[in-house]
Amino acid sequence: MTQQIPTLQWQGDIEGVLVLLDQKLLPAKTELIVCNDVDQVWIAIQELSVRGAPAIGIAAAYAVCLGAQVALDTELQPMQQRVGQVCDYLAESRPTAVNLTWALARMRQVADQATDCGPRELAQALLSEAQAIHAEDAEMCKSIGRHGADLLAEFPVGAGVLTHCNAGALATGGQGTALSVIFELAERGKQPRVWVDETRPLLQGARLTTWELMQREIECTLICDSAAAHVMAAGQIQAVITGADRIAVNGDAANKIGTYGVALLARSHGIPFYIAAPTSTFDMAIATGNEIPIEQRSGQEVVQGFGSTTAPAGVAVYNPAFDVTPAELITGIITERGIVATPTRDRIEALVGRNE
Amino acid sequence: MTQQIPTLQWQGDIEGVLVLLDQKLLPAKTELIVCNDVDQVWIAIQELSVRGAPAIGIAAAYAVCLGAQVALDTELQPMQQRVGQVCDYLAESRPTAVNLTWALARMRQVADQATDCGPRELAQALLSEAQAIHAEDAEMCKSIGRHGADLLAEFPVGAGVLTHCNAGALATGGQGTALSVIFELAERGKQPRVWVDETRPLLQGARLTTWELMQREIECTLICDSAAAHVMAAGQIQAVITGADRIAVNGDAANKIGTYGVALLARSHGIPFYIAAPTSTFDMAIATGNEIPIEQRSGQEVVQGFGSTTAPAGVAVYNPAFDVTPAELITGIITERGIVATPTRDRIEALVGRNE
Repeated sequence: MTQQIPTLQWQGDIEGVLVLLDQKLLPAKTELIVCNDVDQVWIAIQELSVRGAPAIGIAAAYAVCLGAQVALDTELQPMQQRVGQVCDYLAESRPTAVNLTWALARMRQVADQATDCGPRELAQALLSEAQAIHAEDAEMCKSIGRHGADLLAEFPVGAGVLTHCNAGALATGGQGTALSVIFELAERGKQPRVWVDETRPLLQGARLTTWELMQREIECTLICDSAAAHVMAAGQIQAVITGADRIAVNGDAANKIGTYGVALLARSHGIPFYIAAPTSTFDMAIATGNEIPIEQRSGQEVVQGFGSTTAPAGVAVYNPAFDVTPAELITGIITERGIVATPTRDRIEALVGRNE
Repeated sequence: MTQQIPTLQWQGDIEGVLVLLDQKLLPAKTELIVCNDVDQVWIAIQELSVRGAPAIGIAAAYAVCLGAQVALDTELQPMQQRVGQVCDYLAESRPTAVNLTWALARMRQVADQATDCGPRELAQALLSEAQAIHAEDAEMCKSIGRHGADLLAEFPVGAGVLTHCNAGALATGGQGTALSVIFELAERGKQPRVWVDETRPLLQGARLTTWELMQREIECTLICDSAAAHVMAAGQIQAVITGADRIAVNGDAANKIGTYGVALLARSHGIPFYIAAPTSTFDMAIATGNEIPIEQRSGQEVVQGFGSTTAPAGVAVYNPAFDVTPAELITGIITERGIVATPTRDRIEALVGRNE
């Protein structure tokens, strides 16, 4: 069984709307957000109603289409200006995931290259581009799943796989990145046992990853993030697979806070640690992970996350949303074009292409 | 400023009551539990209204006094039998912390060795023993603080110290174990900066440790457990200090789930990792940590911890309350008798005494 409600969906023509599944409320409530303007999408991205690096990119691309709607009755040039402004604005919604920048660059290029057409034709070209980004992502997800399942082909049925955060259908325009590998393994009859880090503070593992796995009837066990080392020591985990939000040229990878710790623990236990991400996640303009901006989020996410206050009033909280796993801890990066084993600059440039 | 409300307090004579601060409700509510019988204490221990290895031992010792009250009007032998039954019963309340077993053994010995006295005299001897356990623990806490602060004497003012769970006044009959070291450093003018793991699932770090530190005006920052590696990589942590619930003869130490992972992360970053615990925490009857029973607790603690459900209904949850940190990851164990550096069986036996 696959997910019945799409993570994000464009409804209508160039004057249509973007419908998002509100992931903040899952799994308790299944509610949709109908976005009619750019601000609604900006807020949905910032508040994590839509999250996951690939999904953010797609949502932002559709948001450009919403932004273009207000200039439909103008000329080409004001429409192009409007698109530029909207792209600048959306780029600020979240800083770490590079897929956002990447998708906006594609949309901006469509606008910039338009000549000899009216605003409605440009709007149509923008919608086609957003839909292409969306469709390509779905295809990339499948391909990541196939490459990952090939890589883990020798794993025994029932092998334990740990994942952190959510890198599934809810994080992408398709069936996910890390979870796509798990889904593909399951389809090939190599049903893994999945250990799911709850992923504090926002519990994407507890709320979203278990939800996706249970819908597909894949055996999964939820643990507190702090229990991962104990489960590894007990020999229950044969591989770790997570997604990524931005990967530097040298292979350093930013992902949900906690990923770096999991990678260190995996190394300590001799467990391979894989990143699964589309090539749009690589930022070929930065040399190392030190250059990746780490989003700092409100301490309220930590102390008021469960409906009641869990710390004294006025406590200082440090709440980085991401951390960076150095390339040396990464066994391989699983992309839609294949695997980068023990990532290095040369290997990544060979797969993704050199930054010009 | 020190804590105004004692963690646990006996009120009255041999017919008195045990008053516990209900730690389940902190910091939102400050409520007391007045225990009149053994069952109330058993439940308070099992539900973590009173928690922390030393505090559990003290609470159990006082619970034996409550249990003896029902036999005050009998003879010596029925009183002794009653004490034996009560000790057997209390020993089952939580399996991991050995201080519970240790305190009950002391109470049992008082009963077993009684001769030529009536039940009221035995009751008085039991109360004196419980009060001695309590007073000795307070003294041990101070001594642990002094030894730990001596050990860290070369640390610069403002050095970062990470702690996991709560090993403070709330966990003991005094000012704590790990936190006692921090309090003593602060008193010596070496105010550290404390990083507090929130400590899922029951958030003893967020709820209790920050509360104690803020009451004493010690700078502290709350983080999700999953952020510890990131903070270490940023060079913010110069030492890790935690408590322990049971330490094997070889130095393997059981403590709150997540401690083992923190110890591995500390090792990866070249940060010293210390355990602070009274010698009553050593279980000289077991050779290694493999023999320490790990309490498994309800998955409800993970998915329904703080007022709202955070995972799909029916999800499988694995919720071990403790993990074991192997001795090789422990830089030193800080006890009331001094430090066991790089713990080995020989060094521990030299400090604690050989098991006969």
